[in-house]
Amino acid sequence: MVVRILGFNGSPRKYGNTFKLLSVALKAAERFEAETEIIHLYDYMLKPCIGCLSDIQEACRYPCVLDDDMKFLYDKILMADGFIMATPVYWYSPSSQMKIFIDRLTVFENMATMGEQCPLEGKVAGIIACGNDSGTIQVIANLYSILNSMGINIPPWALAYYHEKGDVLAKRSSILDAVNIGRNIVLTCKGEKPEKWYLDWKHIPFIYDLVNEVKIEVEENRIMQWKSRETAISKLIGNIEMEASKSLRDKQ
Amino acid sequence: MVVRILGFNGSPRKYGNTFKLLSVALKAAERFEAETEIIHLYDYMLKPCIGCLSDIQEACRYPCVLDDDMKFLYDKILMADGFIMATPVYWYSPSSQMKIFIDRLTVFENMATMGEQCPLEGKVAGIIACGNDSGTIQVIANLYSILNSMGINIPPWALAYYHEKGDVLAKRSSILDAVNIGRNIVLTCKGEKPEKWYLDWKHIPFIYDLVNEVKIEVEENRIMQWKSRETAISKLIGNIEMEASKSLRDKQ
Amino acid sequence: MVVRILGFNGSPRKYGNTFKLLSVALKAAERFEAETEIIHLYDYMLKPCIGCLSDIQEACRYPCVLDDDMKFLYDKILMADGFIMATPVYWYSPSSQMKIFIDRLTVFENMATMGEQCPLEGKVAGIIACGNDSGTIQVIANLYSILNSMGINIPPWALAYYHEKGDVLAKRSSILDAVNIGRNIVLTCKGEKPEKWYLDWKHIPFIYDLVNEVKIEVEENRIMQWKSRETAISKLIGNIEMEASKSLRDKQ
Amino acid sequence: MVVRILGFNGSPRKYGNTFKLLSVALKAAERFEAETEIIHLYDYMLKPCIGCLSDIQEACRYPCVLDDDMKFLYDKILMADGFIMATPVYWYSPSSQMKIFIDRLTVFENMATMGEQCPLEGKVAGIIACGNDSGTIQVIANLYSILNSMGINIPPWALAYYHEKGDVLAKRSSILDAVNIGRNIVLTCKGEKPEKWYLDWKHIPFIYDLVNEVKIEVEENRIMQWKSRETAISKLIGNIEMEASKSLRDKQ
Repeated sequence: MVVRILGFNGSPRKYGNTFKLLSVALKAAERFEAETEIIHLYDYMLKPCIGCLSDIQEACRYPCVLDDDMKFLYDKILMADGFIMATPVYWYSPSSQMKIFIDRLTVFENMATMGEQCPLEGKVAGIIACGNDSGTIQVIANLYSILNSMGINIPPWALAYYHEKGDVLAKRSSILDAVNIGRNIVLTCKGEKPEKWYLDWKHIPFIYDLVNEVKIEVEENRIMQWKSRETAISKLIGNIEMEASKSLRDKQ
Repeated sequence: MVVRILGFNGSPRKYGNTFKLLSVALKAAERFEAETEIIHLYDYMLKPCIGCLSDIQEACRYPCVLDDDMKFLYDKILMADGFIMATPVYWYSPSSQMKIFIDRLTVFENMATMGEQCPLEGKVAGIIACGNDSGTIQVIANLYSILNSMGINIPPWALAYYHEKGDVLAKRSSILDAVNIGRNIVLTCKGEKPEKWYLDWKHIPFIYDLVNEVKIEVEENRIMQWKSRETAISKLIGNIEMEASKSLRDKQ
Repeated sequence: MVVRILGFNGSPRKYGNTFKLLSVALKAAERFEAETEIIHLYDYMLKPCIGCLSDIQEACRYPCVLDDDMKFLYDKILMADGFIMATPVYWYSPSSQMKIFIDRLTVFENMATMGEQCPLEGKVAGIIACGNDSGTIQVIANLYSILNSMGINIPPWALAYYHEKGDVLAKRSSILDAVNIGRNIVLTCKGEKPEKWYLDWKHIPFIYDLVNEVKIEVEENRIMQWKSRETAISKLIGNIEMEASKSLRDKQ
Repeated sequence: MVVRILGFNGSPRKYGNTFKLLSVALKAAERFEAETEIIHLYDYMLKPCIGCLSDIQEACRYPCVLDDDMKFLYDKILMADGFIMATPVYWYSPSSQMKIFIDRLTVFENMATMGEQCPLEGKVAGIIACGNDSGTIQVIANLYSILNSMGINIPPWALAYYHEKGDVLAKRSSILDAVNIGRNIVLTCKGEKPEKWYLDWKHIPFIYDLVNEVKIEVEENRIMQWKSRETAISKLIGNIEMEASKSLRDKQ
């Protein structure tokens, strides 16, 4: 049996801490023979849920009345055995793009409410949250409650987070947590029960190689993505900044 | 002094429970001499935050590098003394559109982090959350922590919620809570301290009139909005539904 | 293999909604051949955690420096394969007695932090929360994050809740959720993967019998416990009430 | 008008980070002419709420049917204009002793539910949470929702937290946040609206003196409390530890 694991990156940055931990987890899953794929949610055009459910409950079901890239993502999810939700912490909750994605999964869950089988039930998931401020565990707790309400299985030690300013790849405990997410999702998909569910650094022979692979991937992504981001981000720096401040003063 | 209160409706439905409670609160504020305005967030094109902050902290400031309708909303907020955030509960958290709106307010808060004054500090806010399942107080708690982290003042009894299936205008306690939000925001903006911060039904002479006004407004909105929503929502009902189910079976 | 499931009742009332749903879940587990036992946490003398961890990390480990009834509960937990945490919602969070119990489980989790194996890892758990106001899903989300941080497995559909005033045994969806918790914990302990993880009413032949058994148990408990509770509870009713109000007025 | 501010310390340690930030906030309040007092909740015998409310709603009112030290604390609260809830983060939520304290405040809030005036309404509060792991903002959000549901006013910037391992008095931003809590509670109690609600380091002339005073207080507390804590905490260190491990192995 080949286990297929999807990683959903809810960060707009393909080289930040959220991506790094997600990549660690997916590469660990591969070491345990899973096939993995990363989906950068910001690469897709996703529209906010319009709440059909509250008008006509039957209208909310796969494949959704909205016409956008979720069609593609729904089919990816249906074919996966497990997945990892990785999100930066924006205001003590998931990023907006991740939130749109979650809301749109209602098409599956609502089928259970209407007495059919939810196509997500029995799938296995883990959660990653990164920020440089408080809120990581709140995001994770929120996602647990959502995923389990959709019938998803949460294996032991299925969480990793980081709430400091700096590089998560310098923090051993977060790397370890991410490796264990990857491993535990695969083992649970396979129905295996290991003697130990949490592996320590010294019992993971491939860990240095894995971290190095992630570092290379991160640098490749940074080079690819930075040019376009820099153009967008730097728009307000420079003399534009002064005008903004001035106009702000005038408006108050 | 004229107090200006904005109500942000995070629901796609202009005739649902979220709108109803928001309208109650705003009309109550008007009884205490505020000028009010309702903003339906789903009427605006808002893009998810792209996290410039994590690359260059200085890049995140009013008026934001993204080019969309937030420009208009930022200026509305700057001119208001208080506001009410009203959201439906989607997966135990605010709607995606409300989440986008919140994330985009970071341009103000980040100015405080950089040592400038946050233009929101001292403004006064209340919160409304409606759903037909659990999650209302979690949404409200999350919004408190966000708003107060931006320097916003939360007056006594600044919350109203409803977590049942049915019409919130049939629930006295929720209506009362909404009226008190409207009143307490205005009083706090004016710097008044009343003898009682929570008014009961019998001490609100205008309450029946107010609820009737809201009912009329709700019906007008329903008629206006329903045609276009019906077209969207009913797309999956009928024979399309059967095909969807079939294609779902094939994909699993 | 005999599966042993413990149910922890965090309510002071042995005849309330929290107990009812817990009893439903445990009796369902028995139908799937588990041995079950209910532990009423309010029957035990449990002291709040004193935070040794923050002074000397090594000091926090099984069996804890505090001398009280947790010794007995620790050993119960070690012998169980799975458990159900059932709590009333007090201020949007678990009851104080449940909170004390949770904090005291740190002796197990801290062993993992120190590089040993957490004795709880791989055990399987579900969560029940009841209140007559908002907060149920927040409590459940909080408990997921705690349990999974201790290495505990959360099987599909491991949650049940009720947030209305009334009798939860009149609410089919909550009863069903509780039955499925019991079933899914047992199946997961056994390593079985059913075709359907969420059983509907019509696929549970024993459900009417089960609910009737719970009703009888509830009435027995009410008769046993009410006498002593009534004495305590009614202390303030009557003329004492008026004095309390008077003294309150004087103190303000 | 003399403003009276109470600080509730929910930590068992009178020399830890929670105490430190609380002391900073209270000393800041004194600089703005408040009278302050610190209450160490662990010094009081407080019993968990027994949920009378669910049996007979009228039974839950000041001064509570339970006979313990809350009687004393209730009266303290009634005489205060504002207070600060300071708690360590135990499992992503307040300490058990703080949770008991909160649950027992229901006697005031329930009076509002029954149509009387809640004696807490209009009082002003701030929140402090410290831990060496995630969870601070979740605790704060939870407390906001509780306090505001009791009619309490949350002034601008009423939160401070710290989620690192180390000494919070080495972290400028947390100290600043705590100072601003103290100041903003007092100003709000007095009905003043300052030009700036968040003061920066350079605009607080007394800040070095204040931090030094706190350091001295912390050392005095440590000397006073450590002897008794050491005895309790070290019980499991040494040969007892080995026996514990052995007995644990035997039981699994």
